[in-house]
Amino acid sequence: MRAWILSTGDELIRGRTADTNTAEIARALAAEGVPVAGATLVGDDEEALADAIRRACAAADVVIVSGGLGPTVDDCTRAAVARAAGVTLVRDAALEAALRARFAVRATAMPASNLLQADRPDGAETLPNRHGTAPGFVVRVGGSTLFALPGPPHEMRGVLAEEALPRLRALLGPSRTVVRTRALETFGEREAAVGEAIADLMARGRSPRVGTTATRGTIRVVIHAEGEASAVDAAIAATEAEIRRRLGTIVFGADGETLGDVVAQSLLASGTTIAVAESCTGGLLGAALTDVPGMSASFRGGVVAYANEAKVALLGIDGALLDRVGAVSEDVARAMATAARVRFGADLGVGVTGIAGPGGGSAEKPVGLVHLAVDARGTVTHRRMVLPGDRALVREIAVKSALDLVRRATA
Amino acid sequence: MRAWILSTGDELIRGRTADTNTAEIARALAAEGVPVAGATLVGDDEEALADAIRRACAAADVVIVSGGLGPTVDDCTRAAVARAAGVTLVRDAALEAALRARFAVRATAMPASNLLQADRPDGAETLPNRHGTAPGFVVRVGGSTLFALPGPPHEMRGVLAEEALPRLRALLGPSRTVVRTRALETFGEREAAVGEAIADLMARGRSPRVGTTATRGTIRVVIHAEGEASAVDAAIAATEAEIRRRLGTIVFGADGETLGDVVAQSLLASGTTIAVAESCTGGLLGAALTDVPGMSASFRGGVVAYANEAKVALLGIDGALLDRVGAVSEDVARAMATAARVRFGADLGVGVTGIAGPGGGSAEKPVGLVHLAVDARGTVTHRRMVLPGDRALVREIAVKSALDLVRRATA
Repeated sequence: MRAWILSTGDELIRGRTADTNTAEIARALAAEGVPVAGATLVGDDEEALADAIRRACAAADVVIVSGGLGPTVDDCTRAAVARAAGVTLVRDAALEAALRARFAVRATAMPASNLLQADRPDGAETLPNRHGTAPGFVVRVGGSTLFALPGPPHEMRGVLAEEALPRLRALLGPSRTVVRTRALETFGEREAAVGEAIADLMARGRSPRVGTTATRGTIRVVIHAEGEASAVDAAIAATEAEIRRRLGTIVFGADGETLGDVVAQSLLASGTTIAVAESCTGGLLGAALTDVPGMSASFRGGVVAYANEAKVALLGIDGALLDRVGAVSEDVARAMATAARVRFGADLGVGVTGIAGPGGGSAEKPVGLVHLAVDARGTVTHRRMVLPGDRALVREIAVKSALDLVRRATA
Repeated sequence: MRAWILSTGDELIRGRTADTNTAEIARALAAEGVPVAGATLVGDDEEALADAIRRACAAADVVIVSGGLGPTVDDCTRAAVARAAGVTLVRDAALEAALRARFAVRATAMPASNLLQADRPDGAETLPNRHGTAPGFVVRVGGSTLFALPGPPHEMRGVLAEEALPRLRALLGPSRTVVRTRALETFGEREAAVGEAIADLMARGRSPRVGTTATRGTIRVVIHAEGEASAVDAAIAATEAEIRRRLGTIVFGADGETLGDVVAQSLLASGTTIAVAESCTGGLLGAALTDVPGMSASFRGGVVAYANEAKVALLGIDGALLDRVGAVSEDVARAMATAARVRFGADLGVGVTGIAGPGGGSAEKPVGLVHLAVDARGTVTHRRMVLPGDRALVREIAVKSALDLVRRATA
């Protein structure tokens, strides 16, 4: 069984609203062992949507559409599905009564267009929506089963989990092929070097399939297999072990874990406290560490010492040192790490100083230059980098590099 | 002229990585007056991608593909485009030389697989990539023009702006119907209240079209019109003026500006300096303010006073006060704002303290309780809120609310 995902909405194809439904539905289908063949985004256009539905039903056994079920005339999923299935729209008396009752309770007049939400393709079964006014439905289109879900993410999520997935599981039956994915997260090597180290495992036709993707400095290695459950699990485990053996310490986590998560959890587990002194990252390092619930047991605090005066006043960095070597230097990064550790009374201190750009660079100290230091109970480790990319990317990779340095200093 | 957008990557159809390229490309095309007919997401599968390319080229005059140009064997856009166009792949000598030169400079061995990036469909023109190793290309497929761009968002963005859009403009020629969109960004009212205030402007059939979308506390009002350029511009300007008149001070910006951008720019323009003292937001407020280049002229620094000891030691908050009213309280927020202003010698100080959850709440002080304060040269404004949502959302809306309080305190 294969699935296709469709999202509809003018705001999506204009790029004004990010389509998060596709990724969320894809994850839910993967968890059920249903591979997704592809996904389509179309505007609020009945003919284009009907055409996309026909193609999706030709390509897949299960089609999940989100959006276009609202009460306004640009909500055309009901009509497009009816057209693709070659059936008429019928008004459902129970849905109409429920809509009228909902407005009666509020003592407000119901706009006539709201009744559109009681229409559905002939033969469709209604999927109740306990999270909003627009119910979904499920209907056969050709040889495929099509689920239509509301577009607002929290409504889609509710109707998917409560109504669509149980019916999908019934369709799948008890014995089925599973699709399993395992992702290993790495940091510290370029994608090409990672790919080279595991090139034979990535060869076409090999099972499990292995692929890499690079996202803002993190390289993810994904292992993917389909088949009978225990065989798939064993094959993925064997491939994972081989990849871990070859890649060594650059593997920091799995299945979407971030460096922030991994470092924070490890600090919490070992009862280690940490404090940070940041310059170019402006608070992002503290934010990454405190993204994890319960981090108050380990994170003592931080100083964002943006101005040199702040480095002197709040961290006690020597003003003469700043004058001599400049704020973006190994010595200042080391002094910041130590000051953070000592001032906050923590086990670890981290210092980050750099030039995020676009301005402020020079031949000697270019944009992207970052000095990091970690003071672990008096032992200081330093790293110098020149990072590529724009201001946001430099800041983000500087944070990841600092977290990676903490990870390695505490390993 | 109509466009179709294609994104490729197993990560995308499994929902493991969010596809942000489609929305970004859609916005860029809209700005050029090119309507997007739809978008497709497919995995790293040469045959499926070739099929999607053929369909896209049948449906649209311009097709923009992102992803699948990297150096590993699962990057199959080059081969899929060649297959869809019915041409062979050829290795480009200039690209090969450039790749080899790039590695020679670094004095590292080039993985052999990197040479895949020098392949391209016969007849394609290379689109240089100054942001990474994978160049894009443009080629005719049937009657359509296909642009292939690298997948990493910052590389896609660079090649799109520098190489693809100039060629697209040449294709479009001088006279054309434009599609214009204007978005007004608001903060401080619920979506239903915003919609109520401009309900008549949002009526179906009216031109320009007006719609609202809510994203993590920010409500965006989008005005959209198509037609002859000067008429469209005038109609959008008139509708914008009316919406601004009705919504008043909750409108903080336009076209994707964030509260951080707006506040930072306003501080820079007026030469006002700022410092922050954060607790539950862990550094996110400082990060939001320093997202803007050149902010070192205004942002003095911050303290992330997560532990109570840090509030006492680094901010000089009275330990007895903390014991009496608790860290999450109006008095402590006010004291943090003043301490930030005074310690960093800034014009403005901001204090944020709250309970981001999921733990740490009580009947009296529930999860989501946030106290904010802004000290503007000695005049302190305070705000108490109980925010909905999970830890990440509480932190994000707390930051936005703090920025909004700064905006209003300095208006």
